[in-house]
Amino acid sequence: MSLIRFGDDTGVVPPSMSQVRLEPQTGTAFKLKTGDVLRVTDLEGEQVADLVAFAREGTSEWLSSGRTIDYANCIYLTTGNVLYSNRSRPMFTITQDDVGRHDFFLTPCSPETFQIIYGAKDYHPSCLENLAKHLQHFDIAADSVPTTFNIFMNVEIDASGNLKILPPRSRAGDAIMLRAEMDLVVGLTACSAEMSNNYRCKPIGYEILES
Amino acid sequence: MSLIRFGDDTGVVPPSMSQVRLEPQTGTAFKLKTGDVLRVTDLEGEQVADLVAFAREGTSEWLSSGRTIDYANCIYLTTGNVLYSNRSRPMFTITQDDVGRHDFFLTPCSPETFQIIYGAKDYHPSCLENLAKHLQHFDIAADSVPTTFNIFMNVEIDASGNLKILPPRSRAGDAIMLRAEMDLVVGLTACSAEMSNNYRCKPIGYEILES
Repeated sequence: MSLIRFGDDTGVVPPSMSQVRLEPQTGTAFKLKTGDVLRVTDLEGEQVADLVAFAREGTSEWLSSGRTIDYANCIYLTTGNVLYSNRSRPMFTITQDDVGRHDFFLTPCSPETFQIIYGAKDYHPSCLENLAKHLQHFDIAADSVPTTFNIFMNVEIDASGNLKILPPRSRAGDAIMLRAEMDLVVGLTACSAEMSNNYRCKPIGYEILES
Repeated sequence: MSLIRFGDDTGVVPPSMSQVRLEPQTGTAFKLKTGDVLRVTDLEGEQVADLVAFAREGTSEWLSSGRTIDYANCIYLTTGNVLYSNRSRPMFTITQDDVGRHDFFLTPCSPETFQIIYGAKDYHPSCLENLAKHLQHFDIAADSVPTTFNIFMNVEIDASGNLKILPPRSRAGDAIMLRAEMDLVVGLTACSAEMSNNYRCKPIGYEILES
């Protein structure tokens, strides 16, 4: 691991910056090579970042919450856990984690999320829209986006199975590092849903440490 | 709702039987029309049936665990709950449920499940293989199979997030009824994983009550 490079969906690699800032309620998509490490940082604290990935060699292979949770035998994933594809191949290993609480149940918020859960009538930015906008450059459609790995999202389940969406446990500067175990196309957002982010949508930082 | 018809993936509709029996460690796929009700019965007790669905008008619309759990705000779904697609459209409503404990976290068992979790070296039947074999008649590939709704599967989560796979709570004759809210292609199995079925893989019954 040597160079720190910029990653975005245009392929431009500005040499002078190490960390990309995703503005509130935005997203991006980029490539990772096997061995690259993606570091995602909560810049201000209490902010979720939705992550999705597809195999570069064939985007019908995608990050699978169900396989991952089954093999980990745990819903809370942290350092040492492997995130698997729908073909049961490792896509990422979590190599460092300052927080230890992320969600892998819930789909990225979409326009319908805000209508169905919140009764919104007007346009609202959403993670699905932000992912789809950038993943389309890699010929990946919105319909192909599975349950995302929702970094820093804090979901607890009571004994009856009811969900509680709590403020993220992450504080300013907390980060998670994920090593790519295959060549990937990755989508990443600064989550758009107020309730998941303690009622203020904030930016997210990320950088790619090349292998 | 009037006629009870046979459903299978060949389109053959034997008139003299109301219930199809899925032999242990097998699966099937069939069509449902809007308003049809699918009844799935645990014939002997303590047996899981994995269910998946795709929109007939476009199979890139699929049953989404993430959307469903998000909108229900609960991981345990039962009578009255709606199962949503990735496009946030209702696919099924659960209209009756004798059991009240099903899983919607875990992917259907696959050949790799038995290798990774159980260390199996030899061939083992699996739900993913059984779904894919029948869904291919509807041009749906194995890679398109998302997290299934695992009827009667009994998964509990402790406070640390660890999963416990317990024997199903269903007894012989217990059933669940799901009303199709759109025209669907459905895949269904009698689950092949010994551990999920109290260490004996048994048959599943199903029938389609036409609207």
